Amino acid sequence: MFRKLLTLDEARRTIQLHFKPKPSNVEKIQLLEACSRVLAEDVTAKLNIPPFNRSTVDGYAVKAEDTFGAYENRPGWLKVCGVVNAGESSKMAVTHGMAVEIATGAPVPEGTDAVVMKEYTRREDDDLYLCSAVAKDENVMKAGSDIRKNEVALLKGQLLGSREVGVLAALGLSKIKVYPLPRVAVLSTGAEITEPGRKLPSGRIYDINAYSLAAAVRESGGQPVYLGVFPDDETELRKTLERALESADMVITSGGVSVGPKDVMPSVVNSLGKPGVIVSGIAVKPGKPTTVASVDGKPVFSLPGHPASALLMFHLLVRPMVLLMAGRRVECGLEVRAFAAVRMFPAKGRRTFVMVQLEWDSGRLVAVPVQTGSSGAITTLARADGFVEIAENTQFVEAGEEVDVLVFEGFEEKRL
Amino acid sequence: MFRKLLTLDEARRTIQLHFKPKPSNVEKIQLLEACSRVLAEDVTAKLNIPPFNRSTVDGYAVKAEDTFGAYENRPGWLKVCGVVNAGESSKMAVTHGMAVEIATGAPVPEGTDAVVMKEYTRREDDDLYLCSAVAKDENVMKAGSDIRKNEVALLKGQLLGSREVGVLAALGLSKIKVYPLPRVAVLSTGAEITEPGRKLPSGRIYDINAYSLAAAVRESGGQPVYLGVFPDDETELRKTLERALESADMVITSGGVSVGPKDVMPSVVNSLGKPGVIVSGIAVKPGKPTTVASVDGKPVFSLPGHPASALLMFHLLVRPMVLLMAGRRVECGLEVRAFAAVRMFPAKGRRTFVMVQLEWDSGRLVAVPVQTGSSGAITTLARADGFVEIAENTQFVEAGEEVDVLVFEGFEEKRL
Repeated sequence: MFRKLLTLDEARRTIQLHFKPKPSNVEKIQLLEACSRVLAEDVTAKLNIPPFNRSTVDGYAVKAEDTFGAYENRPGWLKVCGVVNAGESSKMAVTHGMAVEIATGAPVPEGTDAVVMKEYTRREDDDLYLCSAVAKDENVMKAGSDIRKNEVALLKGQLLGSREVGVLAALGLSKIKVYPLPRVAVLSTGAEITEPGRKLPSGRIYDINAYSLAAAVRESGGQPVYLGVFPDDETELRKTLERALESADMVITSGGVSVGPKDVMPSVVNSLGKPGVIVSGIAVKPGKPTTVASVDGKPVFSLPGHPASALLMFHLLVRPMVLLMAGRRVECGLEVRAFAAVRMFPAKGRRTFVMVQLEWDSGRLVAVPVQTGSSGAITTLARADGFVEIAENTQFVEAGEEVDVLVFEGFEEKRL
Repeated sequence: MFRKLLTLDEARRTIQLHFKPKPSNVEKIQLLEACSRVLAEDVTAKLNIPPFNRSTVDGYAVKAEDTFGAYENRPGWLKVCGVVNAGESSKMAVTHGMAVEIATGAPVPEGTDAVVMKEYTRREDDDLYLCSAVAKDENVMKAGSDIRKNEVALLKGQLLGSREVGVLAALGLSKIKVYPLPRVAVLSTGAEITEPGRKLPSGRIYDINAYSLAAAVRESGGQPVYLGVFPDDETELRKTLERALESADMVITSGGVSVGPKDVMPSVVNSLGKPGVIVSGIAVKPGKPTTVASVDGKPVFSLPGHPASALLMFHLLVRPMVLLMAGRRVECGLEVRAFAAVRMFPAKGRRTFVMVQLEWDSGRLVAVPVQTGSSGAITTLARADGFVEIAENTQFVEAGEEVDVLVFEGFEEKRL
């Protein structure tokens, strides 16, 4: 069951070989609820936009050729034969020598092909004097000029923001098909772990990971299913995971993956289905004991118990999969260039991630490592702005050297 | 009632003079729902974290001084007097010459002050041989070393992401106080406008703005209240706005702000309360007819009917206010540097915003204007990646000149 420690790149390739994450289904929702969802269909215009030749100004709809030669000193003359307001439709048959008063947004009547702006006219009862000529189509937005009927307006896979929601509204859609949010079950294990909100027995600490990972799932476009805290009991864990796998698309556990006698997670997940454990430890620091299983096609990520390690491994391995299952793209993440505040060493033979805080120092942005390791679990979470990745074969990163800091979600809001 | 056209900077100052947007209240929610909400209280640790001296390894808890002098060729000897597992508490009184078997995460028993890693021991029944000495506090995470009781762990105003949610969980909180999402009522006006999802009568077009603006409110951390489409009827609009102002913190309308006879919005909002209209038109392009009113302390933004103009003015004026009401910071927005694809002209005497699409051209990022103005309402929405701001006094931006493009939300996801 246990293979050799993989490098991070090997672990990623193994995961890619076993899973082809994509949305599992399609659901229909109200357009008003569509913001930040992902479109599950190509959307084809069922109508021309605008649906009719539309006046873009207040004025008079005319036959353009009737206005030719009109200028200030020798105004043209037309007879006003009616009016068309915005929202009305005009069945008038306009013939030569006639004009129809028209409002911005109103349909240009049959027989006319241009609109003279009100400013260039003078009206006396039904007599209209024009001090300017108009060209054909002037001040007219032609039917279908914005979107032509049967044109594809938005493509499947489009993330919907305010602008795309506007486009869908323009097409008259009040319901649309989107990908469901992938359901990701999250649980923590450990005999010493107690759920927040309960009384803390002596010798116990409150759970962090099920909460922080559930929030991270949400930030990645997934729907977290919070299962809570479970002791290191094989039978109960197996039952819980089986139930979770029935309804969720993915399961994330934390704790119980090290080498202690209570670290039962790898053997439990390996027994749940085929092929079982596919990644059993990764040559990274932190995050080494991370275990990944494929249970009849569904991924189970067993992350370490240390909160900063768990969240880092989530970012490196789990987040891309949640994004893909949500139908979203895997973004590269926001990188900020900074200067290393101190010399940083990689762990021997392991890809090393140093959690850092970004600070301004004499006009330079400096990456200061946040205390990690066994202590400072929460301090690390609270203070780190992102992490510096140090390759396996690097000797060290020198103080003052430029480094790329991959910053966490929400960093933009930090007042630096 | 109508003052002279303000510059954009004057309009912003006028708005800042009239409103001091901030959260109006506090609500208590489940920590599991806290992601992307804003903390409404300083959170003080009610307990030490960790709550007890905690072993960071599997091994034996000892008095450090009992191990001094032990090394590989001359192992120390101690008597094992018990075991403490993770989640247990130990009431053992450990005296000199004794050791307690201890698991990672378990509390270090009274009387011991260090933990020897299992790897450095050999055990025969209750006899423990140590091939290495340990210093005081070695492999022990001291009580309160991560967060000390009564320390402030997170500050009021903190935007909550996965890491902050983790910190709150660590403190044992399952419910927290956050700022409510500001309620922003959104409606469209215009006799020619029909709500999406209904049959489109002849001469009509579907509403875009109430949908796109509602989504933009959500993207800005607000709770949109969709009111729908209303004809340009003063009495009905007044009633609707009065009702909206009763329950919402802010109102956004679109359409009806130009100078046509049906553009009743400015006079309606001016009659709703004191001081009424404070900004009546702004020297910008697009967005000139934008009207802002203060109705007994609540802002009413009346945006133009053109969808791209409405959304642009939302970004420039409304979004900062929604963010502040949500207790969030006004971010500068993401700017991308690109080369102007063509010469861009500002409108005379007006701050001009050119909607652009970003494209790669021979290895350079190029800002290509998207057709705007009267036509291309939806094309603009769908294709623009952001906008270039051209100052009032600029003659023009030369083709090939470098420009800053302020990109729209969701741009990062675009595959360039």
